[in-house]
Amino acid sequence: MRDASANANAKRAAGEAAAELVKDGMVVGLGTGSTVAWTIRRLGERIQEEGLQLLGVPTSYQAENLAIDSGIRLTTLNQNPVLDLAIDGADQVDEDLMVIKGGGAAHTREKVVACSARRFVIVADEGKYVKRLNHAVPVEVLPFAVRLVEQRLMDMGGAPLLRLGKMKDGPVITDNGNFLIDVDFEEIADPRGLAARISSIPGVVEHGIFDNLDELYLARAAGVEIIKKRG
Amino acid sequence: MRDASANANAKRAAGEAAAELVKDGMVVGLGTGSTVAWTIRRLGERIQEEGLQLLGVPTSYQAENLAIDSGIRLTTLNQNPVLDLAIDGADQVDEDLMVIKGGGAAHTREKVVACSARRFVIVADEGKYVKRLNHAVPVEVLPFAVRLVEQRLMDMGGAPLLRLGKMKDGPVITDNGNFLIDVDFEEIADPRGLAARISSIPGVVEHGIFDNLDELYLARAAGVEIIKKRG
Repeated sequence: MRDASANANAKRAAGEAAAELVKDGMVVGLGTGSTVAWTIRRLGERIQEEGLQLLGVPTSYQAENLAIDSGIRLTTLNQNPVLDLAIDGADQVDEDLMVIKGGGAAHTREKVVACSARRFVIVADEGKYVKRLNHAVPVEVLPFAVRLVEQRLMDMGGAPLLRLGKMKDGPVITDNGNFLIDVDFEEIADPRGLAARISSIPGVVEHGIFDNLDELYLARAAGVEIIKKRG
Repeated sequence: MRDASANANAKRAAGEAAAELVKDGMVVGLGTGSTVAWTIRRLGERIQEEGLQLLGVPTSYQAENLAIDSGIRLTTLNQNPVLDLAIDGADQVDEDLMVIKGGGAAHTREKVVACSARRFVIVADEGKYVKRLNHAVPVEVLPFAVRLVEQRLMDMGGAPLLRLGKMKDGPVITDNGNFLIDVDFEEIADPRGLAARISSIPGVVEHGIFDNLDELYLARAAGVEIIKKRG
């Protein structure tokens, strides 16, 4: 219990630290998950306390609802196609800042938002920071294409598993109306190459490998560590 | 009028010739468009005349309705993930049998069906057969990602145009609930490379470049010409 609560405190500290990146007048992508939820709540406080002006672009219904509850004014990617900053969570990040996302089933919209931002920041606890990616890769697929996609993923050496709901019968349905396949590739030697190969499978909407992270706010027991992209 | 009618006759001949590829017991992908409609109708006749046994997998609501009207028993890709044959139309085919599809807004499902088949055949009239592809490439996109995708396509040298409806206000909506962008790249020097780059844009569901054609049934004024993949 003590470790769990220390971890929860560290996540909150990292999430709130990232909220300080937001400056007056920014358009900000708002991510999905438990750590970035602290970022969104802190932004709501800053609006109250400092009169901070910002526009948020949510990456999911979860982020949208939390932003509304926090008093953040929202806009859309079609109205504001270039964001100043996007802040999100992650399932796993490696030392080259390659990322796996999609545990919350929102990685498609998250990737579009992240790729629309001048600066992409992830907040995550230290258990998610690894030398080499080995988390299952979430892949959003069109429902009628599941069998073909599964076969192609197996041909690539992956072990695909259709994600099933816990609060609904049958498959999880994404915010875009599609299915999710979680694919275990064990240790991933070449994340960029794998990403390109998965993107080329017909019926794949989007996979959870992200290659455009600029900065990681890592929630360590000792405090928040900031890791920037090299070069 | 005379040319138009000669062209219509040639298309019908090619469509009906392709229907002869179907053998008893096959599972067959049924494409979308005016030429392949003749294939579907001819298959219906063969069921009546010869008692031909086949199962069809439609690539669109259009193909599904025409198959039902023609008396073809249907199945799904999830029940029959490997097809013996897929027959479809095209917007343009080049001499290496690279293909552009999507004028009918159905290329995503068409590609999944074509890639699930052991043999992929296209029927098209000779006006669509070219030395080098220069037709606009249809790209199906998630509605919230349109601006990002348009920007990336412009960065790649394309001129993107959101496809608008003629029988509905605003954008065309695909059978999967998404938008379509028609992208003019003028002459396409490297269709495979372009295909991979478009696939990697976040928010792209599927583009209309197909690289897996086995055989082209070309409707020429002089008769049907069959062009097979080299090598």
